Amino acid sequence: MKTSKQSILRLFQYRDFLIRLKNINTVNVFSDNLAKDIGTTSIQVRKDFSLFRLSGNKKAGYKVSNLLKQLDELLGKNKKQKVVIVGAGNIGKALMQYDGFYKEGLEIAALFDYDRRKYNHKNNPPVLPIEDLFKFVSSNNVKIGIIAVPCKAAQQVLDLMISAGIKGAMNFAPIPLKSPKNFYINNINLRVELESVVYYTQM
Amino acid sequence: MKTSKQSILRLFQYRDFLIRLKNINTVNVFSDNLAKDIGTTSIQVRKDFSLFRLSGNKKAGYKVSNLLKQLDELLGKNKKQKVVIVGAGNIGKALMQYDGFYKEGLEIAALFDYDRRKYNHKNNPPVLPIEDLFKFVSSNNVKIGIIAVPCKAAQQVLDLMISAGIKGAMNFAPIPLKSPKNFYINNINLRVELESVVYYTQM
Repeated sequence: MKTSKQSILRLFQYRDFLIRLKNINTVNVFSDNLAKDIGTTSIQVRKDFSLFRLSGNKKAGYKVSNLLKQLDELLGKNKKQKVVIVGAGNIGKALMQYDGFYKEGLEIAALFDYDRRKYNHKNNPPVLPIEDLFKFVSSNNVKIGIIAVPCKAAQQVLDLMISAGIKGAMNFAPIPLKSPKNFYINNINLRVELESVVYYTQM
Repeated sequence: MKTSKQSILRLFQYRDFLIRLKNINTVNVFSDNLAKDIGTTSIQVRKDFSLFRLSGNKKAGYKVSNLLKQLDELLGKNKKQKVVIVGAGNIGKALMQYDGFYKEGLEIAALFDYDRRKYNHKNNPPVLPIEDLFKFVSSNNVKIGIIAVPCKAAQQVLDLMISAGIKGAMNFAPIPLKSPKNFYINNINLRVELESVVYYTQM
C-alpha cells in the first residue's frame, strides 16, 4: 500500500468531519462534502478511500457511522496511546495542556527534562528527570515520543527514545535527525510554517 | 507559476541547509546533497529549482552563496516581517518566546487576548486587549497573524484580522475557517500531526 504522510493526515481530517456530522445526526455523506470540508478535491477523496480500502456506496453516499467505524479501526482509535514529551519548556508545556489529545485517546503519560528545577513528580502528567526516561518508556510500553528540546539536544534525545523502545516521534527541533528506517519521525518546523505564510502574503 | 505549499516549505528547507553549508565555507552544492538533507529526491530538487527559476550549473553544482541570494530574494528574507499573535495561552506564549523566528526576520510585534488578566503592556512583545488589534495592525502595517485561540473564537479572530488588513495567518485552532480567496491560511493541527505518528508506529 503506497501511502503518504499527506494521505494519512487527510484520513484524520475526514474522521474529524465525520464526527461533527455524526453529532448533528447526519446519516450519509458524499465525497464532495468531505472534499469541501478539508479543502481537497472529490477525486482525491475517492483515491484515498480506494487506497485505504474504505468502502461505501459512492452514488448513494457513504454511511457516516460505517465510515467512522472503518476509520477508527484503521487509525488505531480503539485503544489509548501513551505519549512521552522530552523538554518541559514552552512547547512541551503547551502540548501537555492541549486537551485535544486526551479526547482522541492520546495520553501524555509524562514529561522529561534535563533541568532539575522543572521536575514535578506530583503534577499530572509528572515532569521527571531525563535519566528516568528509559525505565518509564519500557515499563509503560510507550511507543510515541515528542521531542521539544533545543536543536543541540535533539539527536541525543531521539537516540535515547529509540533505545528505550519508542517507535515514532513528533520533532519540534528545527534540525534533521538520524533514525533507523523503521522509525517514523514527523518533523514540525514552526518557523518554516510561518515563513510559508510570509511567502504567500508577498505575492 | 504552479506552486504548492509543500514546494514552498522545501524552499525554506533548502535555504536552511545552504546557510549551514555557508557557515562551514562550502562553495558548491549538488541537487543530490540538497535532496538528501531534506529527505526528498534530486529530481524533486531540480523540479523545484526550475519552477522557481533558481539558476545554476547543474553539472558543476550550484554556487551556495548565489543560490542563497536568489532564495533570500524569492522568500522575502531581505526585510523584517511583523507578526501578531491572538491568544496568549500556552501555544501563543511558546511562539512568542520561540527565538528561531527573530533570527529569520520574523518579529512578533504583539499578542492579543480577550482575558484582561493576561494583558501586559510592559512585556516585549506586549500582551494587549483584543479591542486594540484593529488599530495596531493597521498602524503598524502588519500582514501576518497567528491564531492561537480555542475553536469557538477562531473564526471571529480571523474575521477581525482580515478586516484589519492581515493577508495571511497560521492557525492552530483545529477547525476549518472561512476566508476570502486571496487570504492565505496555514492550518497546523498538532493533534492530527501526533495521530499520524501513532498510525505509522502501529503498522
